[in-house]
Amino acid sequence: MNESTSSTKIKKYRMELQYKGSGYCGWQIQPHQTTVQETVSNALSLLASSRISITGASRTDSGVHALQQVAHFYFPEKKSVPDLKKALNAILPWDIRVTSVAEVSSDFHARKWALKKRYEYHFYTGEVFPPFRHDLALHLHSGFELKPAAEAAAVLVGTHDFSAFTGSGTSVVDKVRSVTLSRFRRRGSILIYRIEANGFLFHMVRNIVGTLIEAGHGKIKPSAIPSIINSLDRGQAGPTAPPQGLYLAKIWY
Amino acid sequence: MNESTSSTKIKKYRMELQYKGSGYCGWQIQPHQTTVQETVSNALSLLASSRISITGASRTDSGVHALQQVAHFYFPEKKSVPDLKKALNAILPWDIRVTSVAEVSSDFHARKWALKKRYEYHFYTGEVFPPFRHDLALHLHSGFELKPAAEAAAVLVGTHDFSAFTGSGTSVVDKVRSVTLSRFRRRGSILIYRIEANGFLFHMVRNIVGTLIEAGHGKIKPSAIPSIINSLDRGQAGPTAPPQGLYLAKIWY
Repeated sequence: MNESTSSTKIKKYRMELQYKGSGYCGWQIQPHQTTVQETVSNALSLLASSRISITGASRTDSGVHALQQVAHFYFPEKKSVPDLKKALNAILPWDIRVTSVAEVSSDFHARKWALKKRYEYHFYTGEVFPPFRHDLALHLHSGFELKPAAEAAAVLVGTHDFSAFTGSGTSVVDKVRSVTLSRFRRRGSILIYRIEANGFLFHMVRNIVGTLIEAGHGKIKPSAIPSIINSLDRGQAGPTAPPQGLYLAKIWY
Repeated sequence: MNESTSSTKIKKYRMELQYKGSGYCGWQIQPHQTTVQETVSNALSLLASSRISITGASRTDSGVHALQQVAHFYFPEKKSVPDLKKALNAILPWDIRVTSVAEVSSDFHARKWALKKRYEYHFYTGEVFPPFRHDLALHLHSGFELKPAAEAAAVLVGTHDFSAFTGSGTSVVDKVRSVTLSRFRRRGSILIYRIEANGFLFHMVRNIVGTLIEAGHGKIKPSAIPSIINSLDRGQAGPTAPPQGLYLAKIWY
């Protein structure tokens, strides 16, 4: 259902979501897979008694979490749901939570209007991985040093062609993105890497994180990062970090 | 295997454990149930090639977690396992972690030697329960006020007969325990209740927490706590709080 094909009076809404991605094949609807987009779309459709599709700001990968995902959707006005957030949370499984729903102007677009996004990657640096963080962080093994990883992270700030950090198979032509923040923050045994940019390419954060882990283990020198970027060659950067440490954290409009 | 029945040279060990209790019917071995004690005992038995039993400091309930459980066991010296902790963590499922193993004197007893224990109860006080805390905290609904709950908590400090807070069916005769700490600590939307005592009765912490929640909702007055204690009547205190917020947190020897 969208504005052009429907004659019923409909309103446009902006929704904010949190999810633990472990049980989902990512955000985007795919045949024969359970995805976040489909699960939320099904819940909305149940409330509307008609098919409601939703458009998300970011297509998170399988196993990746969201502290804040933003989506928009159309909902028929005649279907009176006084508290759409509460109604959705009552239907949705525990691992997807709607944190806000608000009516927006008809031209709002969750993906196109996004000015900046923040991703976080969570690490656990202690010896024994706590069971309470299962699927929620990556265990960094001994030998990792923060200093070179942080130095390598700092070099990424700026406007660059991020081809060297992009997974193959992407249809995106323009691979230039502006990274405005790229740094680590330590809280005891928890280490969090934050990156903010005006946009991200397929697997970009996970490839950057894989590269920073290599830097922390002395396998890639921080001084080599500019030439890795300039190479535009995916083969020059580190491996793709696993999804369970990654969180879509914030989106600015 | 224990000292009196075995003629092989054996050593006694003290082990510290963390576990997420959601997948277990508590600590203690029970027929046809998966328990933490049995799971750890099986892992040790596999390494020793003989049956090893373990004795824990506390019998945590089904669904209750441990930040620090302590147990002792005997292990045959001839079975050379250079790093018992590492070997156990390689065998054990992710939701049980061994954080330390050390040889102790033959008279050490994990339960009998415990001088003081700390339990924690974790609450989430925000509107939408974060998926990342599923099974790890109790959602406190609006209307809960910390002040009366904290006042009620403070009254529990001291040496009392805790019959009013003990689950039925316990065989323990002496129900006098000395509570040395009983207080709340708030960190944003996370609220943690801590209680320390020289010992705890069956369901004691969960019954206390259920009573403190009632106090927070204005259903039990903090000033009524002394008479609830003095009644020695389980019917006077609040309901048993659910297990998922409870953590065995620390044991002092």
